[in-house]
Amino acid sequence: MEIREILQQVKDKAMTVEEAEGYLKRRPYDELGFAKLDVHRKIRQGFSEVVYCEGKKDEYLKDIFVRLYESNGEVMGTRASEHQYEVVRALLPQVEYDRESRILKISDSHRRKIGNIVVCSAGTADIPVAEEAAQTAEFFGSSVTRIYDVGVSGIHRLLSQLEAFQSANCIIAVAGMEGALASVIGGLVSCPVIAVPTSVGYGANMHGLSALLTMINSCANGVAVVNIDNGYGAGYMATQINRQSCSKEKG
Amino acid sequence: MEIREILQQVKDKAMTVEEAEGYLKRRPYDELGFAKLDVHRKIRQGFSEVVYCEGKKDEYLKDIFVRLYESNGEVMGTRASEHQYEVVRALLPQVEYDRESRILKISDSHRRKIGNIVVCSAGTADIPVAEEAAQTAEFFGSSVTRIYDVGVSGIHRLLSQLEAFQSANCIIAVAGMEGALASVIGGLVSCPVIAVPTSVGYGANMHGLSALLTMINSCANGVAVVNIDNGYGAGYMATQINRQSCSKEKG
Amino acid sequence: MEIREILQQVKDKAMTVEEAEGYLKRRPYDELGFAKLDVHRKIRQGFSEVVYCEGKKDEYLKDIFVRLYESNGEVMGTRASEHQYEVVRALLPQVEYDRESRILKISDSHRRKIGNIVVCSAGTADIPVAEEAAQTAEFFGSSVTRIYDVGVSGIHRLLSQLEAFQSANCIIAVAGMEGALASVIGGLVSCPVIAVPTSVGYGANMHGLSALLTMINSCANGVAVVNIDNGYGAGYMATQINRQSCSKEKG
Amino acid sequence: MEIREILQQVKDKAMTVEEAEGYLKRRPYDELGFAKLDVHRKIRQGFSEVVYCEGKKDEYLKDIFVRLYESNGEVMGTRASEHQYEVVRALLPQVEYDRESRILKISDSHRRKIGNIVVCSAGTADIPVAEEAAQTAEFFGSSVTRIYDVGVSGIHRLLSQLEAFQSANCIIAVAGMEGALASVIGGLVSCPVIAVPTSVGYGANMHGLSALLTMINSCANGVAVVNIDNGYGAGYMATQINRQSCSKEKG
Amino acid sequence: MEIREILQQVKDKAMTVEEAEGYLKRRPYDELGFAKLDVHRKIRQGFSEVVYCEGKKDEYLKDIFVRLYESNGEVMGTRASEHQYEVVRALLPQVEYDRESRILKISDSHRRKIGNIVVCSAGTADIPVAEEAAQTAEFFGSSVTRIYDVGVSGIHRLLSQLEAFQSANCIIAVAGMEGALASVIGGLVSCPVIAVPTSVGYGANMHGLSALLTMINSCANGVAVVNIDNGYGAGYMATQINRQSCSKEKG
Amino acid sequence: MEIREILQQVKDKAMTVEEAEGYLKRRPYDELGFAKLDVHRKIRQGFSEVVYCEGKKDEYLKDIFVRLYESNGEVMGTRASEHQYEVVRALLPQVEYDRESRILKISDSHRRKIGNIVVCSAGTADIPVAEEAAQTAEFFGSSVTRIYDVGVSGIHRLLSQLEAFQSANCIIAVAGMEGALASVIGGLVSCPVIAVPTSVGYGANMHGLSALLTMINSCANGVAVVNIDNGYGAGYMATQINRQSCSKEKG
Amino acid sequence: MEIREILQQVKDKAMTVEEAEGYLKRRPYDELGFAKLDVHRKIRQGFSEVVYCEGKKDEYLKDIFVRLYESNGEVMGTRASEHQYEVVRALLPQVEYDRESRILKISDSHRRKIGNIVVCSAGTADIPVAEEAAQTAEFFGSSVTRIYDVGVSGIHRLLSQLEAFQSANCIIAVAGMEGALASVIGGLVSCPVIAVPTSVGYGANMHGLSALLTMINSCANGVAVVNIDNGYGAGYMATQINRQSCSKEKG
Amino acid sequence: MEIREILQQVKDKAMTVEEAEGYLKRRPYDELGFAKLDVHRKIRQGFSEVVYCEGKKDEYLKDIFVRLYESNGEVMGTRASEHQYEVVRALLPQVEYDRESRILKISDSHRRKIGNIVVCSAGTADIPVAEEAAQTAEFFGSSVTRIYDVGVSGIHRLLSQLEAFQSANCIIAVAGMEGALASVIGGLVSCPVIAVPTSVGYGANMHGLSALLTMINSCANGVAVVNIDNGYGAGYMATQINRQSCSKEKG
Repeated sequence: MEIREILQQVKDKAMTVEEAEGYLKRRPYDELGFAKLDVHRKIRQGFSEVVYCEGKKDEYLKDIFVRLYESNGEVMGTRASEHQYEVVRALLPQVEYDRESRILKISDSHRRKIGNIVVCSAGTADIPVAEEAAQTAEFFGSSVTRIYDVGVSGIHRLLSQLEAFQSANCIIAVAGMEGALASVIGGLVSCPVIAVPTSVGYGANMHGLSALLTMINSCANGVAVVNIDNGYGAGYMATQINRQSCSKEKG
Repeated sequence: MEIREILQQVKDKAMTVEEAEGYLKRRPYDELGFAKLDVHRKIRQGFSEVVYCEGKKDEYLKDIFVRLYESNGEVMGTRASEHQYEVVRALLPQVEYDRESRILKISDSHRRKIGNIVVCSAGTADIPVAEEAAQTAEFFGSSVTRIYDVGVSGIHRLLSQLEAFQSANCIIAVAGMEGALASVIGGLVSCPVIAVPTSVGYGANMHGLSALLTMINSCANGVAVVNIDNGYGAGYMATQINRQSCSKEKG
Repeated sequence: MEIREILQQVKDKAMTVEEAEGYLKRRPYDELGFAKLDVHRKIRQGFSEVVYCEGKKDEYLKDIFVRLYESNGEVMGTRASEHQYEVVRALLPQVEYDRESRILKISDSHRRKIGNIVVCSAGTADIPVAEEAAQTAEFFGSSVTRIYDVGVSGIHRLLSQLEAFQSANCIIAVAGMEGALASVIGGLVSCPVIAVPTSVGYGANMHGLSALLTMINSCANGVAVVNIDNGYGAGYMATQINRQSCSKEKG
Repeated sequence: MEIREILQQVKDKAMTVEEAEGYLKRRPYDELGFAKLDVHRKIRQGFSEVVYCEGKKDEYLKDIFVRLYESNGEVMGTRASEHQYEVVRALLPQVEYDRESRILKISDSHRRKIGNIVVCSAGTADIPVAEEAAQTAEFFGSSVTRIYDVGVSGIHRLLSQLEAFQSANCIIAVAGMEGALASVIGGLVSCPVIAVPTSVGYGANMHGLSALLTMINSCANGVAVVNIDNGYGAGYMATQINRQSCSKEKG
Repeated sequence: MEIREILQQVKDKAMTVEEAEGYLKRRPYDELGFAKLDVHRKIRQGFSEVVYCEGKKDEYLKDIFVRLYESNGEVMGTRASEHQYEVVRALLPQVEYDRESRILKISDSHRRKIGNIVVCSAGTADIPVAEEAAQTAEFFGSSVTRIYDVGVSGIHRLLSQLEAFQSANCIIAVAGMEGALASVIGGLVSCPVIAVPTSVGYGANMHGLSALLTMINSCANGVAVVNIDNGYGAGYMATQINRQSCSKEKG
Repeated sequence: MEIREILQQVKDKAMTVEEAEGYLKRRPYDELGFAKLDVHRKIRQGFSEVVYCEGKKDEYLKDIFVRLYESNGEVMGTRASEHQYEVVRALLPQVEYDRESRILKISDSHRRKIGNIVVCSAGTADIPVAEEAAQTAEFFGSSVTRIYDVGVSGIHRLLSQLEAFQSANCIIAVAGMEGALASVIGGLVSCPVIAVPTSVGYGANMHGLSALLTMINSCANGVAVVNIDNGYGAGYMATQINRQSCSKEKG
Repeated sequence: MEIREILQQVKDKAMTVEEAEGYLKRRPYDELGFAKLDVHRKIRQGFSEVVYCEGKKDEYLKDIFVRLYESNGEVMGTRASEHQYEVVRALLPQVEYDRESRILKISDSHRRKIGNIVVCSAGTADIPVAEEAAQTAEFFGSSVTRIYDVGVSGIHRLLSQLEAFQSANCIIAVAGMEGALASVIGGLVSCPVIAVPTSVGYGANMHGLSALLTMINSCANGVAVVNIDNGYGAGYMATQINRQSCSKEKG
Repeated sequence: MEIREILQQVKDKAMTVEEAEGYLKRRPYDELGFAKLDVHRKIRQGFSEVVYCEGKKDEYLKDIFVRLYESNGEVMGTRASEHQYEVVRALLPQVEYDRESRILKISDSHRRKIGNIVVCSAGTADIPVAEEAAQTAEFFGSSVTRIYDVGVSGIHRLLSQLEAFQSANCIIAVAGMEGALASVIGGLVSCPVIAVPTSVGYGANMHGLSALLTMINSCANGVAVVNIDNGYGAGYMATQINRQSCSKEKG
């Protein structure tokens, strides 16, 4: 409802001043005391709120999972521990946990997967982050193609998958160590590439900072970067792009 | 032409071994000696190659501009100096130069602008980078809405433009100093946000590194980051997203 | 007593040379051998000395807590462990321990709370630091309003609390990740804002350094910054400001 | 005017729907195209907007200075160059320029200076930043006491001024090189200390970063830090504190 | 087989189109799903692929070790844990494990050691990295001379071994702390020096970054650097150089 | 002459004590007062000393160039300015200066070029550093193949030159921005790769530090790194490797 | 014995050629295989070699302690663990261990303590490093005065000890957090000050790097800095200075 | 005069209360308004105050030079420009200026040089910093031996000067690039070594930070470090040590 409509209804006595005030001032979130759940987000942005589980107290986690599940009919948490899985499962037995990506979720089983996102990783050690990206994208309704272990030091592995890369609406490139994967892919495709540096490596990789710098300095076009190990953020943004490509498809 | 077709023609003697070898090995670029121009890029990726002018020698710059213009019927350079404008104009008098963004270009006047990209900046000092982004997006055929001077320390300026933000296919958020603009916008819209840190500021901003870190650590969803002052990169990627949204529109 | 008064008394024989010498040279601290307790601080600065517990040996901790409690009738320690709580409780059974903020204290129950400090946090993970700030301010006699989980990526949560923010004498803004909270608040209020970066986050937040840089580079006026996770320091300085506002109230 | 009042007036037909809509939506800033001047700030926060001159184009600068002067009857710019002084003086001949602090301003001559802020500097090379702080505080109506060249490597210089320090409502401590001044002062006074690191020094001071780190890590209570060389920010916040202390004085 | 030969055979019907297509497109790696083993590397580069064991899951590790051993008749892993040794030994009982260098391997017992590589270390704490380098070089067929504990703070220890250094085809200099070893050696010999910074040290060595910077800034000629603690990388490259020197020997 | 021989001659009175002392203590360098020229280096290491010209005073430069030329019959300086060229040419008219690489030299025209070093660059802006490497290698007697503008964002340009890369004794990979070139090449060849990060780029490349980190973290085998923009160092070490390969050729 | 003397004796047949050769070539260290013990250091530099225990294997540690004790009649290790104490005590039961400083030693009980070194610390948490410095100086024969907990945030504690400071031959200033102690002391005394940054602190102290930078940037004269937590290094150098002052005393 | 004496005189009416108060509170420095000259320093610490000229305004510089010269009969400035030399010479024609070290001074011609300090540099480019150190030490009355261009990449140059090094009371080691000089010297001598990193170098030397880290991490004993390019600080501290050694000489 637009401001003008509300005012018109006040003028017309179709709405009381108090109702109008409440409407204009009302809080689009649930107050839990310790947290303010953004239950309107699914309507406002088309994505339900996701829980960052790391370090959350058990009691907080339980409240948040139940409340979000009740509001949205689905719920997802990232960086969940085995212990947190047990805590949530006691309340919501249908919850699923993936040890590699550490994602804890109840998916909406009726959601149709659309479009095509390619998630690729440079090495096998990058797979946990790549899976966080892939499963996030799937949770939000994207079809995902996984292409793992295609680091640039053996470029033939990557080149042999060129067709798969070129058919994507968006590519997520996950790499640690020197992080050069995103640049090479960026030069081969015409869709946007979201680069995810990982903390995989040792010494001067400085927990992923080196890979982050490599990716930010990429000389390829169409590459943007999210935080180190932030598979979730990449999966989210790739879904935004994938959805826009697809929703317009039928427009 | 697919490999299989080539092989078939060889078998059928429709193509000599030498021709086929040339085809399989041929270089999809122009060799200038000092540079290898990627003249096929417009076909391969849908974007013609853009020239990074800073520090290019005059003789190189002239060759590259002429060759690209002849191949593509349009040409764009970034970070061009006044002097470089003069150098190119001597050969290509129709070239245009914008002192603020330092973009040097001959646009294809027949190109229709499609979709909608919002380019916003935190302060007036960020405008040169914002303009590089906006004009790049326009050069590649995107419609652009500019919303400048909406930094987060006066949040009402930003909130009063909410509708404009929410109608975009992609938003480019340009900010120096503390770089918080991208996070606030990311929380208000459902389209992807490309964050561009700028080197505007002083002291502990460390030439934009501080704004870059702010943006990479954004707690908002749907935000990815390009290099400091890289308006061009943001304009390019925003166009990729904008095009995918639109081209599907009529599909 | 001023130097001039002492000298006058010496001249008048109202004080012996030895007494005067002792007065002029005396050490305003308790010598414990391993430490020099600043027992005069409550008189000099209006705040009793607070104990930074982390890493203190048990025997040192006990001595210090008892000595300060005896001098001041109240005592507070920060970053105390569960174990240290047990150690101190054995000697001072009335001591209280808060697991979230890790504050260990015996408050002066007769102290009236004055003024108004708002302590806000960006996320739920920032609450331990926010509580350290809030409880420090309360220990020193300030009234505190807590507003948690109002990070900038959901700006409506913050805006709906605007009145509460605008009624404060001082605001403490606690945020990790990208740390943009302080800038947004700084632009909305007319009182000073003390920004506390936290180490909450991962990857390129570099244990809070990124949030610290964001806050130091804030483009909002009236924002100053304390060390990462230094809730105590913020609570202390906010109390100084709050007291000055109030003590003058009755002047 | 509160929302409820507006609504009541709409109901009572004392205000049209259009007027009310305008009021609820109106922009509290002047749109200059390239900038959005916050002309309401003086009313909202009690401080008129100040212009950061560095790098501003001449035409922008002229527009902004004239507009702010017309709105507020006073105007101040920081980091102005000699050239910018000439540009503004052509339009506003009464403008004053201080070469040391690089402040360009038209002060309100009727404003009474209140309270007491001490601005101190470690060395003579820190004076330009100290003067930016001092003159900002004076512009906003604070009385200022200057105590320069009292660095900690000659501690007797500082100690001999103890009374002056202890009489302040707020102290601004400006120091480059090792930046230890703020800690020493913080331990001697009961009012808040705003620390300003400067870029004075060489080698491992890294353009002020070292002094910033020193100050952020201060073991003294009641010290908070602003950006390197940010005298303006310190003068602003000190004025907030000074005003609160004084305005309550007569309450 | 060269492309031209394949085409000729197609033309001559000595090869079908399908065979030729397969040959031109075929993947020179084994697809394990989670990984793409580069089993052709031994042929392509003369070195079999080596496994970086740290963090590899047991099931992955087992598959990879067996597959590589079957392909190459030898296999080596670096940074293997005691546990991983047990896991692999259960399948390949002939595997050997060295606790100091953490190398896990089955060597080809028939390989003749050739040439001469000197591996030296600055301190005894650098020996694990030095051993990783030495054993890698030996695995790939190089003769190795070890000279340990010859740091520059007791230069006579190094100088007394001068002849040994001067007889090498390549020297690997392993040092933590200040990392000056490589510069001193670089000035004394005529063969290339590969410098390996180690994370040995404390405080401002920043986990080896300081030694890395020292080595990168070496004023000696003929020094190049690999990653912190990367003994493997140094052993590999030294072997490349050693082999080239020797293989030509008989050419 | 061995120590034992000297002692024997002393014993036999074939050498005086003074002569022997002089021999055992003698300085293998020329004392110029301000500098100690290492005129024996050509004999000891097989390379004559090279002059780092940047910032050298004119009088020093002249002395050094003349002395080295007289000793060695050839002389080379790096990072020479146009002005320094004039200064040296006044004394040694046969000196040659290359503006791109800034190398100033008198080559030994009789030296035969041997072996094969490939010098490649990612972009045209990296050519000055690549040329410093190439001309250094040529000065010391290596044959050099140049392959420029083959950055990884257009991987086809690099792949089409594969044969040239695979025929080298050593490859020098010169790249700024994200510096990924070395990793891709390292995976394609069997000879050592010397990676040279350049300061080409902007923003988060931090004057080449980002490229340096990328290269140091390379996941390819057989890659080692020299300092940012240190083409000379790479050319020197590549020559060491090339010589060893070749000199053994005839052994 | 000078070279000339040796040669003269050879000439005079007072020494055989073999003896002379042995003398000129002999290694002034004990070869343990894994280590080269510098047993001549006590003669050469007047200090016996000290063992850095952290991370040393048990078998290495035992060999080294016994060998050094046998050579020198005294032995000291730094950063020893409780476990290492047990290991060494089994062989050398007279060894003493101090849990605070982690020093493990057998002192020469006949050594007279000379001169005067003041070791001061900013806080109680800095005492372990201060004790490492103090006990090192005592082991090497210096008299030490300890003045702890005199940080600059309570400057009266330091000033009340002024006489003690001014009577020293050398002062060691140990401080973490903001590290300002060294500057204040440097301005009050005329003897050299050795500053030891400690890793005490949190947040932006970055494990002592911040204190190190403060100290390196000290504006006081006569201050030099050793590595973070390097109490040993400070104690060693202070002893050198103290000895020179004293040994000359009787000269 | 001791406090007790003053009090006694007050009691005895030998001193008025006002005189005593003045004495107890008096400022031991000259107030110039903009600066507080420490004219007592020569008496208190035995060194007259030295002027850091860089960036000082002409009028300030003149006042300071004249005042210090009048007080002390000698005066020295560091980092003086040619222009500043002219400014001072107009008032004090006997002032001397050294272009290399940028020292501007009037020495006390009657001062006898005592003791022995060795100042050594790694390269010729480090000489300006080395000269600042040497001339500072000489100004304060030390004898100085210069040994330049003895960098560790040609270790024989350094070793041939061993006797000179071993005869010093203190050594100043000046080095840029990798900064390894201090470690090598520290292992060869028994006197203290003051290490001065210089900003000489390029690329990853980061304006001297790399050399600073090398020196701080030195594994040699008896090495402490001053700021990058701080020749003055090293010369000052070396003089303190040299004086203590010598003054005791005649004690």
